[in-house]
Amino acid sequence: MPLQTRNLLGLDGMKRDDIQLILDTAVSFREVLDRPIKKVPTLQGKTIVNMFFESSTRTRLSFELAERRLSADVLGFQATGSSVSKGETLKDTARNIEAMKVDMVVMRHSASGAPHYLSRVIEANVINAGDGAHEHPTQALLDMYTIRERLGRIEGLNVCIVGDISHSRVARSNIHGLLSMGASVSVCGPATMIPRDLEMLGVSVYHHLDDVLPQVDVLNVLRIQLERDAGRFFPTIREYHNSYGITRQRLEKAGRVITILHPGPINRDVEISADVADSEHSVILQQVLNGVAIRMAVLYLLGTGS
Amino acid sequence: MPLQTRNLLGLDGMKRDDIQLILDTAVSFREVLDRPIKKVPTLQGKTIVNMFFESSTRTRLSFELAERRLSADVLGFQATGSSVSKGETLKDTARNIEAMKVDMVVMRHSASGAPHYLSRVIEANVINAGDGAHEHPTQALLDMYTIRERLGRIEGLNVCIVGDISHSRVARSNIHGLLSMGASVSVCGPATMIPRDLEMLGVSVYHHLDDVLPQVDVLNVLRIQLERDAGRFFPTIREYHNSYGITRQRLEKAGRVITILHPGPINRDVEISADVADSEHSVILQQVLNGVAIRMAVLYLLGTGS
Amino acid sequence: MPLQTRNLLGLDGMKRDDIQLILDTAVSFREVLDRPIKKVPTLQGKTIVNMFFESSTRTRLSFELAERRLSADVLGFQATGSSVSKGETLKDTARNIEAMKVDMVVMRHSASGAPHYLSRVIEANVINAGDGAHEHPTQALLDMYTIRERLGRIEGLNVCIVGDISHSRVARSNIHGLLSMGASVSVCGPATMIPRDLEMLGVSVYHHLDDVLPQVDVLNVLRIQLERDAGRFFPTIREYHNSYGITRQRLEKAGRVITILHPGPINRDVEISADVADSEHSVILQQVLNGVAIRMAVLYLLGTGS
Repeated sequence: MPLQTRNLLGLDGMKRDDIQLILDTAVSFREVLDRPIKKVPTLQGKTIVNMFFESSTRTRLSFELAERRLSADVLGFQATGSSVSKGETLKDTARNIEAMKVDMVVMRHSASGAPHYLSRVIEANVINAGDGAHEHPTQALLDMYTIRERLGRIEGLNVCIVGDISHSRVARSNIHGLLSMGASVSVCGPATMIPRDLEMLGVSVYHHLDDVLPQVDVLNVLRIQLERDAGRFFPTIREYHNSYGITRQRLEKAGRVITILHPGPINRDVEISADVADSEHSVILQQVLNGVAIRMAVLYLLGTGS
Repeated sequence: MPLQTRNLLGLDGMKRDDIQLILDTAVSFREVLDRPIKKVPTLQGKTIVNMFFESSTRTRLSFELAERRLSADVLGFQATGSSVSKGETLKDTARNIEAMKVDMVVMRHSASGAPHYLSRVIEANVINAGDGAHEHPTQALLDMYTIRERLGRIEGLNVCIVGDISHSRVARSNIHGLLSMGASVSVCGPATMIPRDLEMLGVSVYHHLDDVLPQVDVLNVLRIQLERDAGRFFPTIREYHNSYGITRQRLEKAGRVITILHPGPINRDVEISADVADSEHSVILQQVLNGVAIRMAVLYLLGTGS
Repeated sequence: MPLQTRNLLGLDGMKRDDIQLILDTAVSFREVLDRPIKKVPTLQGKTIVNMFFESSTRTRLSFELAERRLSADVLGFQATGSSVSKGETLKDTARNIEAMKVDMVVMRHSASGAPHYLSRVIEANVINAGDGAHEHPTQALLDMYTIRERLGRIEGLNVCIVGDISHSRVARSNIHGLLSMGASVSVCGPATMIPRDLEMLGVSVYHHLDDVLPQVDVLNVLRIQLERDAGRFFPTIREYHNSYGITRQRLEKAGRVITILHPGPINRDVEISADVADSEHSVILQQVLNGVAIRMAVLYLLGTGS
């Protein structure tokens, strides 16, 4: 059965079968990545434009690698120096790009909903690579893939997301995806960083790590935006680390094996201590690798209508 | 008969047969763009460097798409952060790039004549992607292609170019190309924006839209450089719109079907009203698509010596 | 016999056999560059990331051309707008890139030793494209290739490097490579620009061009960093030119045929007069062409373990 959607805009409202199909398809692409030649001809002759209105290294590289390994033609588009700075509307930019007979658009944008808008004005498949504080669906898919790979399942697991939930598209996509897949989801962070209505979604809210750690199977540790957040949502970086930093000591006190995820890039010894990031329970580098496989799966399923 | 030139520097002085050959060749490439696989092996193994000394999104993307769809290897070169900022002369930059055995160079530059100079110091084929206020030949070719596609011919048509003619390479290339192909050409804009010697080329000059609209088949509406021009060549943007903005009301008053072109990006409700830009008489998005076909034709004809 | 190293970090300590193997392998790739189709399938399906933390045009283009002509997939990575600016450590950046199953990394960095560090934390082959004032091995290899191509050998030749030896990675790599290959190496420049311990390596030091010119076969003329150096290491640009500029008059006075190299970009009439740069004894453009062949050889040898 093909994917029940032409675009990947978010995991909010996405059918469980669709999530399952993407995760299962990614398994084959993950195997391709272990071959000496990591390239398949699946999207040969298709053109994909990566429209990144926010700077990004790892997500852009990951998508570009996925696209090239599917043999697509890849065009980059940076916001700086583009017609966008000449005041053209997003609609006109999008329609122009589509007029060139582009097959797929991968978009990162600082405005929530920008890819959704795009998907309504163009025919090409649209993939959201992060929109504002809204959604980052491929990140949540690769997180779920990595959890399933490590623990054999997602359903029934206790997953806690730690950090700035309010401003995190990673958190939002994970919450929707994990709930769809049957996990129990909690969040933990300072009250200033937790949106008020989260419990209505069925998410448990904690403000102290020691209350939630004894019950969790997986921690997804969010990055702190040092430059933006210190002194605003929490007093100091040291204090954040003391309250919410994931340290070996704190994990040992919890008394159970907890799988550690982090979307990267890591602030070592801020939201996660260096030794935990490098420990055997951390799957941070597996997330990076699986990200390429997930993006290949999404591009394949959308690009071929499979 | 092959093209009578090794470079595409401008339409001034270009033979009518050459223009005809490019337009006719573009028809086949336009068909390629309707196929599921829009790629042909024509320039496989050839290397093209896109030297953009001025920022550009749509022209760069259009060339890059054309190049990749001909299976060429494409290298980008941005002025910022390059040896150019280290004070190297254009000649040395060019000779170095050529020394790497590059086959073709596509160049955009703020200095009029830069691609012409380049073509004298290197062996690679040079394509002008816009030089100062001088020429933008592929834009004029795609404009003519789009006119011919919509109206069946170019010869004998009345084409009026509206806006800042003095500073427009699009206007200049269109004037030369359209006159070669047998169209009647007029321009319309404030006196501050019309060069003095235009009538010597055989171009009619108007300062009031209502004087020229009743006679034209095609309007090519130029973009106003808002940031640069307001208060300098015309009092205010509102006043420009009132005098030279293409509106549905004004078109209806003219009492004939007029095909509307615009090189993009559009300032909606400045030089053209939003409803006219989106109307059935606007061929703006067709221009974008045809631009890829025209560039494929030019690259093919120059790159293979056909 | 394959290369005795997995990485190309510098020529200091590199085995003579390895240098010889790279130079000999480059001969075949140099021939490929004379074919109409300059592309071979050698690295098809391999992924190379060009991590340029310092801006560069010619070196980046040369590597990218070499990579594409070997049919590798090429990903670019600019320091600006990357996670690096988000404060991620080089180690985390590198491990993340490697986690995506990248095969080779080409790195330019302002910090001496950055590629060496990288090679210790990742499995991918690392090629140093210039690190601080330390090494630029592919530049020295292409210089030696060009000398051998012009003069038939390297052993026994007198090569003098002129300019700012202290701050030049090109000088450093050339000294190590040339000494390994059996050339006699001298340097010439103002005392402020010559490191103190150079004679311990077996390099002769001169402060007056007229003392050394009568004995040399090859001059490798370094670029003066105009913006940085004038008034700091020498009084004025004119004075530098008078003392160390390579002019036709000075060469004629030396009374022998001297082959002239320059790593580019040239400051015409500063460190080298325009007519010397363009003369028949200058091999500056050959260096550029040979650079692509050398980089193809290095990528081939490291990438295939040959």
